[in-house]
Amino acid sequence: MSTSASLDSVSQSFSLLSIKPSASLSHGPTDSPDNWRETLKAIPAAPSSFELIKTLVFKPKTAKNATPVPLVVIAREATETSSGALGKKLNLKELRLAPEDLLKEFFNLDKNSISPLSLDENTFPRVVTVVDSSIASSSSLFALHAQSSSSTIFLSGKEIVSYLQHLVKEDVKVIEVDFEALKAESGAPAAAPTTHAKPSQEKKKKEDAKIEGAIEIAIGVKKEVDFSAWYTNVLLKADMLDYYSVSGCYILKPWSYSIWELIQEWFNSKIKEMGVQNAYFPMFVSQKVLEREKDHIEGFSPEVAWVTRAGQSDLEEPIAIRPTSETAMYPYYAKWIKSHRDLPLKLNQWNSVVRWEFKSPQPFLRTREFLWQEGHTAHLTKPEADKEVLEILDLYRRVYEELLAVPVIPGVKSEKEKFAGGLYTTTVEGFIPTSGRGIQAGTSHCLGQNFSRPEMFNIVVEDPNDPTGTGKTYVWQNSWGLSTRTIGVMVMVHGDNQGLVLPPRVASIQVAIVPCGITAKLTDEEKKKVNDACLELEVTLKKASIRAKADMREGYTPGYKFNDWEQKGVPLRLELGPIDLGKKQTISVRRDTGVKAPIALTDIGTSVQKLLDTVQSDMFSKAKAIYDSRLKEVTKWEDVVPTLDSKCVVVMPWCEQDKCEDDIKERSARGSEQTDERAPSAGAKSLAIPFDQARWTPIEPGKTKCPACGTDAKRWTMFGRSY
Amino acid sequence: MSTSASLDSVSQSFSLLSIKPSASLSHGPTDSPDNWRETLKAIPAAPSSFELIKTLVFKPKTAKNATPVPLVVIAREATETSSGALGKKLNLKELRLAPEDLLKEFFNLDKNSISPLSLDENTFPRVVTVVDSSIASSSSLFALHAQSSSSTIFLSGKEIVSYLQHLVKEDVKVIEVDFEALKAESGAPAAAPTTHAKPSQEKKKKEDAKIEGAIEIAIGVKKEVDFSAWYTNVLLKADMLDYYSVSGCYILKPWSYSIWELIQEWFNSKIKEMGVQNAYFPMFVSQKVLEREKDHIEGFSPEVAWVTRAGQSDLEEPIAIRPTSETAMYPYYAKWIKSHRDLPLKLNQWNSVVRWEFKSPQPFLRTREFLWQEGHTAHLTKPEADKEVLEILDLYRRVYEELLAVPVIPGVKSEKEKFAGGLYTTTVEGFIPTSGRGIQAGTSHCLGQNFSRPEMFNIVVEDPNDPTGTGKTYVWQNSWGLSTRTIGVMVMVHGDNQGLVLPPRVASIQVAIVPCGITAKLTDEEKKKVNDACLELEVTLKKASIRAKADMREGYTPGYKFNDWEQKGVPLRLELGPIDLGKKQTISVRRDTGVKAPIALTDIGTSVQKLLDTVQSDMFSKAKAIYDSRLKEVTKWEDVVPTLDSKCVVVMPWCEQDKCEDDIKERSARGSEQTDERAPSAGAKSLAIPFDQARWTPIEPGKTKCPACGTDAKRWTMFGRSY
Repeated sequence: MSTSASLDSVSQSFSLLSIKPSASLSHGPTDSPDNWRETLKAIPAAPSSFELIKTLVFKPKTAKNATPVPLVVIAREATETSSGALGKKLNLKELRLAPEDLLKEFFNLDKNSISPLSLDENTFPRVVTVVDSSIASSSSLFALHAQSSSSTIFLSGKEIVSYLQHLVKEDVKVIEVDFEALKAESGAPAAAPTTHAKPSQEKKKKEDAKIEGAIEIAIGVKKEVDFSAWYTNVLLKADMLDYYSVSGCYILKPWSYSIWELIQEWFNSKIKEMGVQNAYFPMFVSQKVLEREKDHIEGFSPEVAWVTRAGQSDLEEPIAIRPTSETAMYPYYAKWIKSHRDLPLKLNQWNSVVRWEFKSPQPFLRTREFLWQEGHTAHLTKPEADKEVLEILDLYRRVYEELLAVPVIPGVKSEKEKFAGGLYTTTVEGFIPTSGRGIQAGTSHCLGQNFSRPEMFNIVVEDPNDPTGTGKTYVWQNSWGLSTRTIGVMVMVHGDNQGLVLPPRVASIQVAIVPCGITAKLTDEEKKKVNDACLELEVTLKKASIRAKADMREGYTPGYKFNDWEQKGVPLRLELGPIDLGKKQTISVRRDTGVKAPIALTDIGTSVQKLLDTVQSDMFSKAKAIYDSRLKEVTKWEDVVPTLDSKCVVVMPWCEQDKCEDDIKERSARGSEQTDERAPSAGAKSLAIPFDQARWTPIEPGKTKCPACGTDAKRWTMFGRSY
Repeated sequence: MSTSASLDSVSQSFSLLSIKPSASLSHGPTDSPDNWRETLKAIPAAPSSFELIKTLVFKPKTAKNATPVPLVVIAREATETSSGALGKKLNLKELRLAPEDLLKEFFNLDKNSISPLSLDENTFPRVVTVVDSSIASSSSLFALHAQSSSSTIFLSGKEIVSYLQHLVKEDVKVIEVDFEALKAESGAPAAAPTTHAKPSQEKKKKEDAKIEGAIEIAIGVKKEVDFSAWYTNVLLKADMLDYYSVSGCYILKPWSYSIWELIQEWFNSKIKEMGVQNAYFPMFVSQKVLEREKDHIEGFSPEVAWVTRAGQSDLEEPIAIRPTSETAMYPYYAKWIKSHRDLPLKLNQWNSVVRWEFKSPQPFLRTREFLWQEGHTAHLTKPEADKEVLEILDLYRRVYEELLAVPVIPGVKSEKEKFAGGLYTTTVEGFIPTSGRGIQAGTSHCLGQNFSRPEMFNIVVEDPNDPTGTGKTYVWQNSWGLSTRTIGVMVMVHGDNQGLVLPPRVASIQVAIVPCGITAKLTDEEKKKVNDACLELEVTLKKASIRAKADMREGYTPGYKFNDWEQKGVPLRLELGPIDLGKKQTISVRRDTGVKAPIALTDIGTSVQKLLDTVQSDMFSKAKAIYDSRLKEVTKWEDVVPTLDSKCVVVMPWCEQDKCEDDIKERSARGSEQTDERAPSAGAKSLAIPFDQARWTPIEPGKTKCPACGTDAKRWTMFGRSY
């Protein structure tokens, strides 16, 4: 195995360099700095004073076919290592924490086991190594993992550097970085955008460090400091998702899939009331069928995955995996719709689609395979189609606002941003406050007669309203889709530095009951009483249709359980101990606010349901207030870029011309001070033309001008950076 | 368009041949012989006496890459055209009615519009044409479609033959077939297998003809005569499914997908009670991961579909679409399971898998993409795994028996028939009486430690039960799956010559309410009263949780509606007219038995629910009695083949040796009199070793011998032909 070979080589190097660890310890596996530190402190043989070494591996953005060269950063635990500033200094794009499979591939280790000693003759030349310059000069004793998170050795700073230096060859060096100086150079990352005052460097440092010390199991990276790493960590630590061996694909674990199931259940019941029926069309589409609508296929063809072989045989012609199903379905709509009596035809399917994007994937937001529903309907008249477009859009709004507690703004897309091949696209537009970016949250398209016309799919019926009895009508079509992106938006909007925060309506566990106060002093009978009360409480709540779980795991402390359920975002924790039992109460702790309050056990089903409803509505109100505060009415061009830079959405009276939209995108990218290399796009595009125009100053026809081009403005339009 | 061009060429041919149609009519589209006949009879200009011409297009089995040569059979409506006998005579394999897309491709027509006139200079050389020899000599006037199901011309038999003969070129002939003689030669198809007496040819003919006359909208082919064509027709006419442009893939329309949804709902609730959680893994598997378990991949690799290209770029290495997910999931099981406290891990997913089979596809039973659920669980001990295998198998039994009213026999598979790479496989084994074949209906596998062992996925924990505290245990795994094959089995078991028969528990509409007796004589008020009563009845039944629908479609007769709901298999029809209303009753008609009975409108929710329960249980009892009657205890080899030939399952005391199973398969194929070319396999294989051994004569160890090889028998085992 490469691991043990490497350990041997480390020992050899040590004896060569006369490095003598001052201690070498075995212990249980550790999975966080705090856990590691506590574990060491509990071992009598450990040095009385030490600092941890953190070893972070990043994957920079590389050309598609290039082998990635990971960046290994070795630093003192307390050193603030900003990946943004570091990437800028080293000219490496989009530094992201390396996925587990990369670590496995390069080091055959998981992230908790990686240490400076993971670098040896084999691995060192294949990575870029950065070392915190303050290590060499420090008098501390440092703890390093010895190829496993369950073993630790202690070395001086000099010894660490000496070990690393002996690996250096002519063309491969160790890069020393003074992170203090780096931070000063690059300036602190953007502070909370509603305030303009920047905290002093000292204060900032303290704040950044706080997250590690304050909680036992940290998310590790602060949401405000490294949003992208925070997001990934929340998903992993909440057990929502895992990375997968095929790039751009992710495993949806039960904790996230259950949210999707709850959305499905709700949405299914609503569309069935509207007369929509579920069906399933094959995932394969023949090339000929796929390429029938030119505008449409132009939008999708660069991302289509093609099956060309089955077993050992090449297929006669390649077959596509659907990126969406319009062209796969509509030949059959033409066949099935023979008369106006066959209308409306309303089908929906829950399926996965594949869009093989080459842009950086992001879990839930941009993945190569994703789950969604796609509805496809055909109507006799345009008014009927129009009506349904809005009915569906309102269901999407309700999925976000009522289920996920995420505010969205319904509106129509600009001509440039509408669905390829459709007539018009309506959208519910979301907003991610931390990045200040808009996100398309769900779209309901009217396709008009573009797909039904004779030269396309020829979906035609005799017009029952034609007085001559000879007229024909090409059907009016809609298509609409909502994907698992919903889950990503929810995580980004509500999550905090303790992890995920779930709105009660989509939490598969709404209430975690944790037995507390069980000490060695209690008799077996007293312990049993507490445990029984917890189980009984679970039963009581379940009877009241509350998704409750008593956490009876043995060998875990209440503190561990608190953190576990907090990371996983369970909306409410109920603590139950002997004292509470005596008072016939339980202590409730809200995940969204952290507020603690006793609740009487009498009629607890009703009071917990009420509290959950409050949590749900508070979460929505809070998020809505933030979204509203970031919608900025802008009427002068010079305010556009500063508004964007302050992580807000520009709402301006707009001329609705394609060319003007292109200009805005280009000019806003140019003018921006934005430095985040990971940003999907620096320029602003139109997000939506909100239906509710009344919230802004009325536009005076012929008088109100578009601030971008100076021509007559038509409607207030949201512009912003986006995902 | 090719259609009109062809009509021109037909006219030219007619004038050349001096053919003068005695009439030429336009009318509404017709979609069945009866419908066509009735339509013509209603037109005053039509001849007073005529016969219909039927034009059947078959697709013979061809080599994989060969262009198919359709067989066009032109015959008098009343002529019995057995595809089996015809195929045998012409040496064409597996004649099946051509799918719509083939008709479209060759003739640019749907099946209702095809006629002898669809053959012209272009199409004739590309097909094999068979003409009923009795046409030429008949004095009847024949009705033919003129390139559309909505136009008809009338020709004499001589004119038809003259038209066909003028298309003949040196190497392409018209084959005249005397179907009466052909039938006499080949013998009638197997009669009902429980009786050995064959009905006389005359009686048989009458019986076969009956189906067309007796009902208005016939399935067209009798279940007992051409089971395969019957099956396809039932699926199409019940609106369950449509053929799709990618071969081997089918569209699941709402009428069948809703059955799947009901199965999902029930099964989900049961497995969630068992602590199973739903998740979603990507559909792609890297080659390396897929090929990790050798036995396993050997079973699947010939059928794996490979993605090799995305947009215009070739992928660095091909990526497989999962044929099943063991190897895709288990690397992550190894990662997630770190301690015995992580056990059991029980995940399930509802997804589609792809197995690119080159055998003839059959809707629901063998398709290239199909929907299923796959459960994958890991346990600390074998007893835990064993227990779950059986719990799941029992859920599968209940899906069949309680939901689909289809009897199955639970048992274990022989070593040869078990899941590739697993330890043992349990199965619920179904039976299709019409073909006399067994069908694997659902399987629950114990994988043992085959996938968890160190050289495989290395899924290992410290053994908490090991007294030394150092022992390790490789986890015990199960996998289990149930697919949309369920729906196909249900259709085959219950369907009849009127179409589909749905068990109430899986019917998306359980009760169809049809307003009756609305004649011109009724006043508007009286009509409204009937209509209102139907709608009210729908509401009443829905309140009683019965899935009811009032069929208020205008412009359709009650007779049309009766047939429509019968074809679609709705379990119960309620007829409601003015007379019924006067009597405060409705007339119920059971789909399964045809039994008509009045039901009082008072407390109708209760009585209808009771009746539905009776239908459900009667359907199961009937199917179970048939299955039981076809299980034949066999103890002598010479009885094996006759038992199989009489469409029964052989149950014999078996030695359980692989070699013996091979021998049985070979010898039973050789000895068989079976002539059905379409049969998936002529030899018998072991279907299951039933758990319930008590239903057969006790095996005396060392005394009871295996009738196939003469060595000691172990257990009673079911052998049969199968799907």
